[in-house]
Amino acid sequence: MTQWTLAARAEKMNPSVIREILKVTEKPGIISLAGGLPSPKTFPISEFAQAAAAILDTDGSSALQYAASEGYIPLRNAIADFLPWDVSPDQILITTGSQQALDLIGKVLIDAGSRILVETPTYLGALQAFSPMEPNVVSVASDEEGPIVEDFAAKAGTGADKARFMYLLPNFQNPTGRTMTEARRAALVAKAMELGIPLVEDNPYGDLWFDEQPPLPLTARNPEGGLYMGSFSKVLAPGLRLGYVVAPKNIYPKLLQAKQAADLHTPSFNQRLVAEVMKNGFLDRHVPKIRKLYKEQCDAMVAALEREMKGLDVKWNRPIGGMFMWLRLPEGIDTAKLLPKAVDRNVAFVPGAAFYADNADVRTLRLSFVTATVEQINTAIAALAATIREELGAQR
Amino acid sequence: MTQWTLAARAEKMNPSVIREILKVTEKPGIISLAGGLPSPKTFPISEFAQAAAAILDTDGSSALQYAASEGYIPLRNAIADFLPWDVSPDQILITTGSQQALDLIGKVLIDAGSRILVETPTYLGALQAFSPMEPNVVSVASDEEGPIVEDFAAKAGTGADKARFMYLLPNFQNPTGRTMTEARRAALVAKAMELGIPLVEDNPYGDLWFDEQPPLPLTARNPEGGLYMGSFSKVLAPGLRLGYVVAPKNIYPKLLQAKQAADLHTPSFNQRLVAEVMKNGFLDRHVPKIRKLYKEQCDAMVAALEREMKGLDVKWNRPIGGMFMWLRLPEGIDTAKLLPKAVDRNVAFVPGAAFYADNADVRTLRLSFVTATVEQINTAIAALAATIREELGAQR
Repeated sequence: MTQWTLAARAEKMNPSVIREILKVTEKPGIISLAGGLPSPKTFPISEFAQAAAAILDTDGSSALQYAASEGYIPLRNAIADFLPWDVSPDQILITTGSQQALDLIGKVLIDAGSRILVETPTYLGALQAFSPMEPNVVSVASDEEGPIVEDFAAKAGTGADKARFMYLLPNFQNPTGRTMTEARRAALVAKAMELGIPLVEDNPYGDLWFDEQPPLPLTARNPEGGLYMGSFSKVLAPGLRLGYVVAPKNIYPKLLQAKQAADLHTPSFNQRLVAEVMKNGFLDRHVPKIRKLYKEQCDAMVAALEREMKGLDVKWNRPIGGMFMWLRLPEGIDTAKLLPKAVDRNVAFVPGAAFYADNADVRTLRLSFVTATVEQINTAIAALAATIREELGAQR
Repeated sequence: MTQWTLAARAEKMNPSVIREILKVTEKPGIISLAGGLPSPKTFPISEFAQAAAAILDTDGSSALQYAASEGYIPLRNAIADFLPWDVSPDQILITTGSQQALDLIGKVLIDAGSRILVETPTYLGALQAFSPMEPNVVSVASDEEGPIVEDFAAKAGTGADKARFMYLLPNFQNPTGRTMTEARRAALVAKAMELGIPLVEDNPYGDLWFDEQPPLPLTARNPEGGLYMGSFSKVLAPGLRLGYVVAPKNIYPKLLQAKQAADLHTPSFNQRLVAEVMKNGFLDRHVPKIRKLYKEQCDAMVAALEREMKGLDVKWNRPIGGMFMWLRLPEGIDTAKLLPKAVDRNVAFVPGAAFYADNADVRTLRLSFVTATVEQINTAIAALAATIREELGAQR
């Protein structure tokens, strides 16, 4: 009999809560506000078809061959050009989605037991990516403007237990949809510089603003003090798995070596596809259409909530971009227990608890406003309100 | 000042030796026998162009959307169909190249200090992929038939120090080009079952046999006792980064969770491209052409060695498939020191030392016979022989 001995980190791995939920929502007739799937209406399919034909016609051998781990140089140049601060292409590492950047950062900066700081709540995928390196994840209290600077300082740790970094998602955060204000960004960066703590900034949604661009990234304010992650998943297509990380010159070589060991390089063909589609300012014409669509759908969701949740003690925010919003339900409701009842009424959401590193608020939940149509959003929010009313009735 | 503290594993990371060599070989005029790049002549470019157009025309929204971490079901079915033992598609996890499977296996099976066994020498990329998990890598002595079973048993370890697995590349091994014989496979699997040690089998080159198929994979002999990795890099195109791992039902969920945290899923579009190109028995028509080309180039290299190395105490093997052969130079030559002199004569190879987990044989080197043409192979082997002669002359 073969004796399989799992690594300690693997013993602790659990199936993703979101993943399990998404399985439930595959039931026909369910309107899912759970997943973070961009609207397929926004995928520039014909542009990709033209790009694929052109690349295979003129550059097929290179597009299908092994390539440098750093990434395709024209793509790295294009990224350097559009970032809003002075970045050299040498500092840009192309990754297999920005999720992979989280994995590489974990390998390079986390020892077992290392303190790392996160927002409250934070992106579940980051917790999962860091988890194999067995960090001590510490939540920094956060309000509607972002993480609270005094609590950041209080949780920073000292000596050998000093935080290796704080992970942040400042624009239209997953899961809350909130955006860090200019004042909070300035104060947090100043405190991080004072304490010497690196900031790891994740910005997959930053281009999806509705009416005005969000404030300058944290990394732009102190490039030597942070890592910055971006993605093409929300502005072009997630199925190509194309992201990147920008790193200071002292950290880049380590991320590169981790990248090489992880998957040698990100697919050459996909990097060329995105570089080709981006040519001649395509994103400047394309992204405004995504912004308009998502804003309409967000407005529809807010209007539906105002209409349907009347008289219920339900709180929500009004995002200024991105894909998600965050609800807090009345006292006594646990959204994980509410979910199966909502699914019975053909609507799905993500219970908030999974997004907390500790002390989960079980009254919270995440809704996506980008995958469903306006009509579906209206139906789904009405069904969610009916589920909550029934639950409150049952409790009395 | 920001204080970056690297993880202990990152402090130990070194630039890949092969990578640094490949940089040198980018010098114009160099004939590189160093890299493991498949011949671009073998890439089915027009088939990929047709497949890309068809997929984006009929299935573009799904091909560009987020997808399941397990992989695209039709591709998993196709893999299950062509594997030479009874495998359920549920046991197949699609990875971003088979290099990623090594990373996932390391995360799931290696704790810091865990004993793992490897061949002598072994695939450098596996050492790099396992290294972040900080294993205690132990080499098993190997001869021309593969790892020596008695030494496998002697190095197996006991109790808490029992080997977590042995990593093997039985067909046309990278770097040596050697193939495990039927007798050695049978004996090794029997001993592994007796000792209860899992076998991790890597088979990226298995389809590239010249005259006859290699013996049955190790995993086919004891499917519950091993993990099996395959790749489309050598039979279709490496630039798509498409590989897979076959796992027993108790290990699969852990690999899946590690996969999800690592990059969510392998690109949806690429999985469809390969599934589409594979339809209607394409590989049965395509792979024989690769075998024929590589056999001709291997024969040319062996003939060139016989011609050029006359009178020199240089030993080599005659591979029966794959991409690589292995040389041992005369006493007193260190191939790492020889390399710059060879590059001066416009030929590059990989010094063998990097492929040893311990006790490197510095007289060895790896040659690839697949990237260069026959004419280039003839020129390069003559240049290599001249370099060796000069080196031996200088030593006298």
